[in-house]
Amino acid sequence: MEMVDIIAKKKYGQTLTKAEIEFVIDGYTNGRIPDYQMSAFLMAVYFQGMNSDESTNLAMAMRDSGEVLDLSDIKGVKVDKHSTGGVGDKVSLVLAPLVAHLGAKLAKMSGRGLGHTGGTIDKLEAIPGFNVVLPLEKFKEQVNEIGCSIVGQSGDIAPADKLIYALRDVTATVDSMPLIASSIMSKKLASGADAIVLDVKVGSGAFMKTKEDAIELSKLMVEIGKKAGKKVTAILTSMDEPLGHKIGNSLEIYEAIETLEGKGPEDLTEVVSVITGHLLRDAKVVDTFEDGYKLAYKTLRNGEALNAFYTFVAAQGGDVNFLKNKANLIGDTKVEVIRAKMNGFLEKVDALNFGIAAMKLGAGRMKKEDKIDLLVGLDLHKKIGDDVKIGDPIVTIYHHDKGLQEAKEIIEKSYVVGPKQIKLKLIEETIV
Amino acid sequence: MEMVDIIAKKKYGQTLTKAEIEFVIDGYTNGRIPDYQMSAFLMAVYFQGMNSDESTNLAMAMRDSGEVLDLSDIKGVKVDKHSTGGVGDKVSLVLAPLVAHLGAKLAKMSGRGLGHTGGTIDKLEAIPGFNVVLPLEKFKEQVNEIGCSIVGQSGDIAPADKLIYALRDVTATVDSMPLIASSIMSKKLASGADAIVLDVKVGSGAFMKTKEDAIELSKLMVEIGKKAGKKVTAILTSMDEPLGHKIGNSLEIYEAIETLEGKGPEDLTEVVSVITGHLLRDAKVVDTFEDGYKLAYKTLRNGEALNAFYTFVAAQGGDVNFLKNKANLIGDTKVEVIRAKMNGFLEKVDALNFGIAAMKLGAGRMKKEDKIDLLVGLDLHKKIGDDVKIGDPIVTIYHHDKGLQEAKEIIEKSYVVGPKQIKLKLIEETIV
Repeated sequence: MEMVDIIAKKKYGQTLTKAEIEFVIDGYTNGRIPDYQMSAFLMAVYFQGMNSDESTNLAMAMRDSGEVLDLSDIKGVKVDKHSTGGVGDKVSLVLAPLVAHLGAKLAKMSGRGLGHTGGTIDKLEAIPGFNVVLPLEKFKEQVNEIGCSIVGQSGDIAPADKLIYALRDVTATVDSMPLIASSIMSKKLASGADAIVLDVKVGSGAFMKTKEDAIELSKLMVEIGKKAGKKVTAILTSMDEPLGHKIGNSLEIYEAIETLEGKGPEDLTEVVSVITGHLLRDAKVVDTFEDGYKLAYKTLRNGEALNAFYTFVAAQGGDVNFLKNKANLIGDTKVEVIRAKMNGFLEKVDALNFGIAAMKLGAGRMKKEDKIDLLVGLDLHKKIGDDVKIGDPIVTIYHHDKGLQEAKEIIEKSYVVGPKQIKLKLIEETIV
Repeated sequence: MEMVDIIAKKKYGQTLTKAEIEFVIDGYTNGRIPDYQMSAFLMAVYFQGMNSDESTNLAMAMRDSGEVLDLSDIKGVKVDKHSTGGVGDKVSLVLAPLVAHLGAKLAKMSGRGLGHTGGTIDKLEAIPGFNVVLPLEKFKEQVNEIGCSIVGQSGDIAPADKLIYALRDVTATVDSMPLIASSIMSKKLASGADAIVLDVKVGSGAFMKTKEDAIELSKLMVEIGKKAGKKVTAILTSMDEPLGHKIGNSLEIYEAIETLEGKGPEDLTEVVSVITGHLLRDAKVVDTFEDGYKLAYKTLRNGEALNAFYTFVAAQGGDVNFLKNKANLIGDTKVEVIRAKMNGFLEKVDALNFGIAAMKLGAGRMKKEDKIDLLVGLDLHKKIGDDVKIGDPIVTIYHHDKGLQEAKEIIEKSYVVGPKQIKLKLIEETIV
């Protein structure tokens, strides 16, 4: 088998065999196939695509390039969720204790934030003492005992994906459906869960800008997951505005606690309940999605899962007393309020720009090496469709001076107040 | 300017500016742009193409990556020709002395053979003493004095093209019209001639298998040449059978001499006359192509340019006396004759396979490093449309044992005798 022939085969639109895809991934990971052949191959894939069998074989070959977690020590059905990345997305923080409280097992590896999207691991580090690195045995033990754990992704999960992603980044081959789908799924397949819900964000603040693209990606990921033997459900959720009100690491912990107390924003409560509904059905805690969804929603609104959150935080060494005084999560930040200049309804929000504004304040990273400020961020007081009067606060900026002017300028041009009262559809599709 | 943005621009089908193309070629030649970005770029060009402005800018940027010959010391219009490579193509050997004899100036750099196509430089080296490496001053002096010179391509002509071609070869990006056209034209533009005829071979033995592809390539090369300030004509000539009768280095010198004596095969005499006709018009030796063509044809048939060939050989140190006894060009080779097994007409010949058979005997190279046997080769006794009787010799194989069996097997399955008398069209199109 020769790499140049495999490149040519894909270039001419032919379907690659499992053996050919394994040859490519194994050869590239082990340094036998040079970068210049891999990048030509990736560009050919961009143009010719891959069918779901090829994409599955690609995801499985990348999964097998490193460690595949064996979670069989954990009793019962292991569940996991993945978000394609949005602004203000603190779903995992609420979901983990909720799922645990309701009797399923969530064993999750999460990432750090980059660019305008935050990362669950960064947010958890806003809790003093919280340990995001656990040995595998400890991780499994915790899930067995309290029902959930969230840790940083191990370095040896899907190393082929890391290498290929770095190459895609510098060769303009990121935006290819089979490459995106197999990249995400390779890591999910290696993480060992039995059932997975994929939260595919769509809209201005998401990687997928159109519903058509988000559906295509969702279908492909669900097919890959099923062909690899997992239960997989994808939901398309709107990222035309940030999820909830708060953006920033400590601030999102704050909002997660509010939501677990039963006082959370409707959109966040809804998305968490929908994902939990699917996971509880897959874990056989309930018979149907509807039962699971209702149970989750009621539990959140009654504040019944709050203690499970503290248990989860305590299990990973986090300071629960610190959290119980939520003012600690605002800390010493200074406050600046942006107010409405006209009457009407909030018509439009540029979620991407709000993410960028928070990054400018220090809440996110431009480059992997950048340090972040866990306390700074934004609190959005209005959601799309809300009534707005002149002088109403639109956004509160929590800052440490850095990036304030830039953030203000971005925010000012990133929302529209007008005469139309728009109602966003939060959950756009469910793909099973 | 960032390479990743230029890759993305081409990937999305946008037109690149002159500055962007120069950035790519300059950066790659000087090692600032890595192979992996260049190969992704080349694959994007394969899929999205390049218009004639982009292709011209690419050819000119590659031309400017090395030495651009200044032939202004040579008086009058300098002419050149290029063949895209065929089997039995000894046109340059006949054309150079003919053009010189008729009063134009041909200053030509040629290449060596690779795969199933021979190279003019290898063929000239079949003449004892012939020197294919001349200093530029000597080269120009010779053209001034006797009207022609053929030398090997200087190492510093279009180095970007050499680097890019090597990368294309291992990344399945060879068969892209703008890349092929700009590669050929970069070298022709750097070689300093004022007028160029491109002999684009089409058919089973050529790189361009279909007339459509050959026309597309021809048009693009003519446009590039004109935009770069040259007079350029392309002719499409059939490579559905080898040109002339003989394939192999010494054997093609043999047939070139026969043609200059006025006893050459009709197809070879015709192609040389057509190219010469265009060049004589461009050099203002005659007013019209028709005048030039008729003059060339008559001169060949009268054997009037034979002495110009000997003058050319002598000027570059070749042994003219050796050539005057043509049996020297057969040497000590052994002979094997393949004979017809049925009556009819020669209907079909696989020119590519005849080229491969000659290569197996040692006449050509599989890899650049391979040594070749200058004496071995094939003599085809029949042309398509010729009457064939059982027992008629079809091919004489001149060999030194090596590869004989393989060559015989290839030849046996590479021609068809049948009831149809086909007349090939030799010159399929002229593109100006």
